[in-house]
Amino acid sequence: MSPDSTSLNTPEALAPADADAMVAETAARARAAAPALARAKPADKTRALRSAADAVRAQAAVILTANDKDMAEAEAKGLSGSMLDRLKLDDARLESVSQGLEAVADLADPVGRIQADWTRPNGLVIQRIAVPLGVIGVVYESRPNVTADAGGLALKAGNCVILRGGSESAHSSAAIVDALRTGIAAAGLPADAIQRAPTQDRQYVGAMLRAHGLIDVMVPRGGKSLVGRVLEEARMPVIGHLEGLCHVYVDGAADIDKARAIAVNAKMRRTGVCGAAETLLVDRAIADTALSPLLDDLIAAGCAIRGCPEVQAADARVTAASEEDWTTEYLDAILSVRVVDGMTGALDHIARYGSGHTDAIVTEDRNAAARFTAEVDSAIVIVNASTQYADGGEFGFGAEIGISTDKFHARGPVGADQLTSYKYVIAGDGQTRP
Amino acid sequence: MSPDSTSLNTPEALAPADADAMVAETAARARAAAPALARAKPADKTRALRSAADAVRAQAAVILTANDKDMAEAEAKGLSGSMLDRLKLDDARLESVSQGLEAVADLADPVGRIQADWTRPNGLVIQRIAVPLGVIGVVYESRPNVTADAGGLALKAGNCVILRGGSESAHSSAAIVDALRTGIAAAGLPADAIQRAPTQDRQYVGAMLRAHGLIDVMVPRGGKSLVGRVLEEARMPVIGHLEGLCHVYVDGAADIDKARAIAVNAKMRRTGVCGAAETLLVDRAIADTALSPLLDDLIAAGCAIRGCPEVQAADARVTAASEEDWTTEYLDAILSVRVVDGMTGALDHIARYGSGHTDAIVTEDRNAAARFTAEVDSAIVIVNASTQYADGGEFGFGAEIGISTDKFHARGPVGADQLTSYKYVIAGDGQTRP
Repeated sequence: MSPDSTSLNTPEALAPADADAMVAETAARARAAAPALARAKPADKTRALRSAADAVRAQAAVILTANDKDMAEAEAKGLSGSMLDRLKLDDARLESVSQGLEAVADLADPVGRIQADWTRPNGLVIQRIAVPLGVIGVVYESRPNVTADAGGLALKAGNCVILRGGSESAHSSAAIVDALRTGIAAAGLPADAIQRAPTQDRQYVGAMLRAHGLIDVMVPRGGKSLVGRVLEEARMPVIGHLEGLCHVYVDGAADIDKARAIAVNAKMRRTGVCGAAETLLVDRAIADTALSPLLDDLIAAGCAIRGCPEVQAADARVTAASEEDWTTEYLDAILSVRVVDGMTGALDHIARYGSGHTDAIVTEDRNAAARFTAEVDSAIVIVNASTQYADGGEFGFGAEIGISTDKFHARGPVGADQLTSYKYVIAGDGQTRP
Repeated sequence: MSPDSTSLNTPEALAPADADAMVAETAARARAAAPALARAKPADKTRALRSAADAVRAQAAVILTANDKDMAEAEAKGLSGSMLDRLKLDDARLESVSQGLEAVADLADPVGRIQADWTRPNGLVIQRIAVPLGVIGVVYESRPNVTADAGGLALKAGNCVILRGGSESAHSSAAIVDALRTGIAAAGLPADAIQRAPTQDRQYVGAMLRAHGLIDVMVPRGGKSLVGRVLEEARMPVIGHLEGLCHVYVDGAADIDKARAIAVNAKMRRTGVCGAAETLLVDRAIADTALSPLLDDLIAAGCAIRGCPEVQAADARVTAASEEDWTTEYLDAILSVRVVDGMTGALDHIARYGSGHTDAIVTEDRNAAARFTAEVDSAIVIVNASTQYADGGEFGFGAEIGISTDKFHARGPVGADQLTSYKYVIAGDGQTRP
């Protein structure tokens, strides 16, 4: 998930009231379909998702032609190479979209699961049972594959979804949604389980955010400006991650070989993902021996280093880190590196500058690991592994609709389980309350 | 929980900027105390809650004197008898405040609980561990006992809390908070785990609602106007219930004796609670035999009945129900009664007019019960028992801070468990992501 502010920069044409009416109409169709989705048996949803995967395969030619159109328009607009790459579909990428839907189809069904049950002294049996959230709005960047991931996860959890992808991917997303709907309908569930925004007008997003009571939850997926706007304007709950300012702390008791491999992987495997490390903290106790090999590996891998004075002193290729560097999510081959006073220094730095996303410690000391995992207040805290494991797929969630840095409702990777609520069902035998 | 809009009607005196500064100062103290609360061992919190209960007992004279002051001011202002009764403290009520704190002390500690754990094929062990939410703001009506319930539950879940009770109970609440803080500090935890609004100025509530990033969650507890204002203005997540428009559906396969006892209890045990029934639905299949005894019992218990034409025809004492009656939370000894076309008619009525709080079916037919519990989309769905079991204490939660009709984060009674979030802790052995 990386920035894509251009998605919201299409010219304003719709009047707000017209946008409100369009959202109301789409949401009404979703709400009409919602009870059938909520009641759908696990096997019905599995079949629908497999059928949707097949429909994407069957309509590959149509989808790729639509993608060609998006690509031509994007090139004419002068979009950057990395944005064009994210937009691009081909046979292999489309096959992985279908396989993603099949992976979600094979997940355990989260709906109807009895999360807890107990019997009260008066004989009442109370069960807490997972239920769908309802109608979910997803606003996302111009990555056509997100269309299928978000649609598939929402359906798996018995929800209806309204998808509003970035304008650059409008043709591709529309073609994919058409295929998903065809597949779902062929399997006997309502096609309106998955709908797309009927317009790319930016007013439509504003109207979605105002649609309290029609859309139950909004999920923004994309850059900081998009997520910030949704958090600011939404009149309904939001599941959104703001940023991933992830740290790797190399403790005094670290295995240096592990530390070197983890630091390079956490930063350089993919620099544009939210789980990429942005700051490396090194315990002063081992700075003398650990700093040079860590910096050598990172620089050899193509990473630019911005460091505190002690890090600069260790390697002439390091430039000076400013205060701003400690709060910057580079999403690029740049790493800030700082020597800290042991565990307390690391915890203080992370508490002050971190974003509560994912932070890792490298240590062979179980007590140090226990203190770090207890005291770092982040969605994901990792011992002796790369921060790039911050990913729904890597958690075994099949896919993810995003990674939440919020503590409310869902924290960390948001998969199908996180798109559910629950109800209490109480079975009695005539009990009245004294 | 019943309406108390007067709490917000104190004159405006503080400038908004001054109110913001006061909230910032209070929240800063809470945030400074939060790490110690989050780290506190279960035994520390149990001891602190027992110590707080003892401090309430030790300071009973001071608290009752403060309450006398509130009562005198409230009487001078001409408050209604029921409001005076809710405000009033005496030795017995104060002892039950202490016992409530001890009940919360004895609950299982929700923090640190491993909610799920699994091992990935690459050897990573993932644990999902409950953590506190952080700093909770509670805005509530003039019921002094809520001060201790809300403070105790928040502390049990490792949170810090800022309590803003209704202005009529200002002296009582301040004295209770002082006692709680004394008890907590005596047990070695930070007194700032529980703070109260340093002013009763209504601008303070507005400033709390703007304090995004300082207060993590707001919990409004009270009438519709208070909860509505908080939902409208809060810039942070809110756990709040809007209203309890609860139904009892007497199915064609009901045991009539159970139905009679449940209908009277659901409506009349206490009419002012959110779990009180507001509408009785009777299956046409048994209306001929069931309606008369049901109406007789209710009217004998002092309940006024507003009914559809068929209900009016069954008993001359029934007045006509208007469309508005089906959406009215009376919180009084009034019940709307309607004859419906079996299960489908009941489900349609509840979907159209219900508030998603608590609904009950009376039936001896297991299939009917299963359909009703599956299809009614409410926080609590009850078979063959009174809707008045919608209560955290009755669920075994020790106490409750409210009942949520939202599907996001917490639904139903909000106890200590519902005031937590979670983090993922991943243990590796040097894994890097391919």
